[in-house]
Amino acid sequence: MENKKVTFNDIAKYTNFSKTTISRYFNDPDSLTLKNQEIIAQALKDLNYQENKLAKVLANGKSEFVGILLPNLFLNYYSEMLNQLLATYETFGYKFLVFVGTGAEETERKYLQELLAYKIEGLIVLSHTISSKELASYNVPIVAIEREDEYINSINTDNYLGAEQAANLLIKNDCDILIHVNSEVPENIPSYDRIRGFRDTCEKQNANYEMILTDLGNTYNDTKERIKEVFYSIKDKYPGIRKGIFMANDTHANILINLIMREYGGFPDEYRIVGFDDSPIASEAIIPISTVGQQIDKIAYEAMALLVSLMDERKKRKPKPQTELIHEKIAPVLMQRDTTR
Amino acid sequence: MENKKVTFNDIAKYTNFSKTTISRYFNDPDSLTLKNQEIIAQALKDLNYQENKLAKVLANGKSEFVGILLPNLFLNYYSEMLNQLLATYETFGYKFLVFVGTGAEETERKYLQELLAYKIEGLIVLSHTISSKELASYNVPIVAIEREDEYINSINTDNYLGAEQAANLLIKNDCDILIHVNSEVPENIPSYDRIRGFRDTCEKQNANYEMILTDLGNTYNDTKERIKEVFYSIKDKYPGIRKGIFMANDTHANILINLIMREYGGFPDEYRIVGFDDSPIASEAIIPISTVGQQIDKIAYEAMALLVSLMDERKKRKPKPQTELIHEKIAPVLMQRDTTR
Repeated sequence: MENKKVTFNDIAKYTNFSKTTISRYFNDPDSLTLKNQEIIAQALKDLNYQENKLAKVLANGKSEFVGILLPNLFLNYYSEMLNQLLATYETFGYKFLVFVGTGAEETERKYLQELLAYKIEGLIVLSHTISSKELASYNVPIVAIEREDEYINSINTDNYLGAEQAANLLIKNDCDILIHVNSEVPENIPSYDRIRGFRDTCEKQNANYEMILTDLGNTYNDTKERIKEVFYSIKDKYPGIRKGIFMANDTHANILINLIMREYGGFPDEYRIVGFDDSPIASEAIIPISTVGQQIDKIAYEAMALLVSLMDERKKRKPKPQTELIHEKIAPVLMQRDTTR
Repeated sequence: MENKKVTFNDIAKYTNFSKTTISRYFNDPDSLTLKNQEIIAQALKDLNYQENKLAKVLANGKSEFVGILLPNLFLNYYSEMLNQLLATYETFGYKFLVFVGTGAEETERKYLQELLAYKIEGLIVLSHTISSKELASYNVPIVAIEREDEYINSINTDNYLGAEQAANLLIKNDCDILIHVNSEVPENIPSYDRIRGFRDTCEKQNANYEMILTDLGNTYNDTKERIKEVFYSIKDKYPGIRKGIFMANDTHANILINLIMREYGGFPDEYRIVGFDDSPIASEAIIPISTVGQQIDKIAYEAMALLVSLMDERKKRKPKPQTELIHEKIAPVLMQRDTTR
C-alpha cells in the first residue's frame, strides 16, 4: 500500500485555491476564513495527505520536541515519572525524545548534543551526572526534577515536609526511639531534606532519635546486606522498646520488613515502619507499607507547565530573559497502611 | 551565554575552503580527503558549531527516528523493555520518540499519525490496541513485541519453552499436583503459549494437573482478591499433598506467596511456586521467587536489529519488498530461587 506523495500543487488543484492559500493554511491558518480552513482540511483527508512536520519545523523553528534525560528506568520512581511526563502530550502537545544516561559525563554530554541537534525546545533532566552549571550554559529552557539544581529551574517533592509527616506519625505511634536510615546524601540534593526534616522534627518534639547515615550499597543485593546489618544492630541496641523506623524509600522499607517477618514469623508490635515514595512495592509487600507518597503525576505536570511557559517566552518577538530561577515544591501525601497504627 | 548561529559562510572563511566544500562535508563527507575532513571537524569545534540535523533529515529523508508505542510503563516488563530499547542508541544510533497508549483506538491512532508526521523510519509496538492488520497498512517498517502479530514482524519470548521449563521444574520437585493459574488469554497472543506449553508438558509427563483459567482482575487490589479466592480453593481441594503452582507472572506469584506466608507464618514444604518474567519483585519478595526469566535486553536488541535491517532495505535504490514476515523467539532462562528446591 504505497502512499503517493501528495504535494501542495495537488491540494491546490483539488480545492481550486492557489498554492499560496494552501501554504497559508499550514503556516498561518487563522489568516483564512473558517470555511476555507474546513475545505482544505477535508481535501487533506480525501487526498490522504501526510503532513511533514519536520519541514514545518525548519520553516518556523518550533520542533515541538522536548528532551528527557533520565538516570535509569530500573527504579519505579523514574519509570513512573517518565510515564506521567509522556502523558502530558495530551495537554501540551509536545513530543518527547528520551535518553537514559549511563552515569558517564562524556556519554550524557553526547546525548545532550544529539538532543540539541534535533532542535529540542526544552529539556527535562532527572539524571544527576552533569552539573546544573554546565546544563545552564546550553541556553535551552531546562527544568530539573530531584537533582542538584543550583543554576537551573526545578520541581521537587517537598522532602522536608515528607520527613516531618513520617516523624510525626511515628511519634503518634508512641515509639520510644525514632530512627532514620539513609545513605550519606550530599546536602545540595533535594532528598537531603528528608534527613533535615526528620532531625528537626525529632528535636522540636523532644523525641529520642538516632540517625543511621551510612553507605547502603549500589546493587539490590548489596543494599539487602547493609540493611540486614543495620537491622541487627537496631535490634540489639533497643530490645523490648518500640522502634519507629523511617526508611529512605519503599524498597529499603520492604527489605527491612522482610527481615523482621523472617526473624519473628510476624510483624511484632515493637516495630513501626514508614517508607518514602509510595511505589508499587509499598502495596505489594507482605505487610502493606505506610509511606510518604510522592505525587509523581503532579510533579510531572508542573515540570512540563513550567517548561512550556519558558518555551513560550522564547517564541515571543522580544523574549524576556529569566531573571530568577524557579524552585517549586510539591507536597507529598502520607499513606497510612499496616506498618503503623 | 547566547550562542551566535554559525553559518556555512563562517566555516568557509575560517577554513579557507569554499562553501561548496563545507556543504559536501555535511552531505557527502567521503568525497573529501580525510585531512580536509579533519580540518573542517576541528573548525566546527573551534567555532562551537551547532549542527541542525532536522535540515539534514529534510535533505536526505533519514530522520534517524524510531517510534515506540507502549501500553503502559506501570508494569516493570514495559519500563525495562523501554530501558533496553533506549540503550540500543549506543549500537544503532537511532533516536526514540516515545508514546504511552491509553487503550483507546482513536488516541493511539492519533499518536501514530504524529509519529508518521515526524518521519519516523520505523516503529516498535508493544501496545495491543490497534490490530496488526491496520498497523501493517501504514507502510512503515514495524516490529511487535508480545502482542498479536499476524500481519507484522515480531520478537517474543519463547513462552512455550518457558512454560515447559516451569512444569518440568515442578515435576522434579515431586509435586503431587501441578496447577497453572492464569487469566483467559486469547489464543492469538504470544503469552497464550504459557498455557499451551504447561498443559502439553503435564500431558507428556503424565503429571496430575489442573488449569485454573479465570478473570484475575485489572487492578492490583482486584487481582489480590481473585488470587486469594484461588489460593483458598487450592488449599481446600488438595490438603496435605505437594502443590506445584505455576503463576502467570511474578506479581501474581508474589501475591500468592504473601498469602501463604500470612496463612502459615512460613513457607510450608507442601508448596512449590514458579513465576514468570524475573521482574524485580521476584527478588524483592519475602521468599525470593523461582521464575522463568525473560531476556528483555536480548529481546530489545533483536527487535531493533530486525527493525534496522528493514529500515536499511528501504534506503536502497531498489528496496526489495518483504516477502515473508519474521517471527523470532528468544529463549527464556529458568531462575531457581527459594520457592522451589
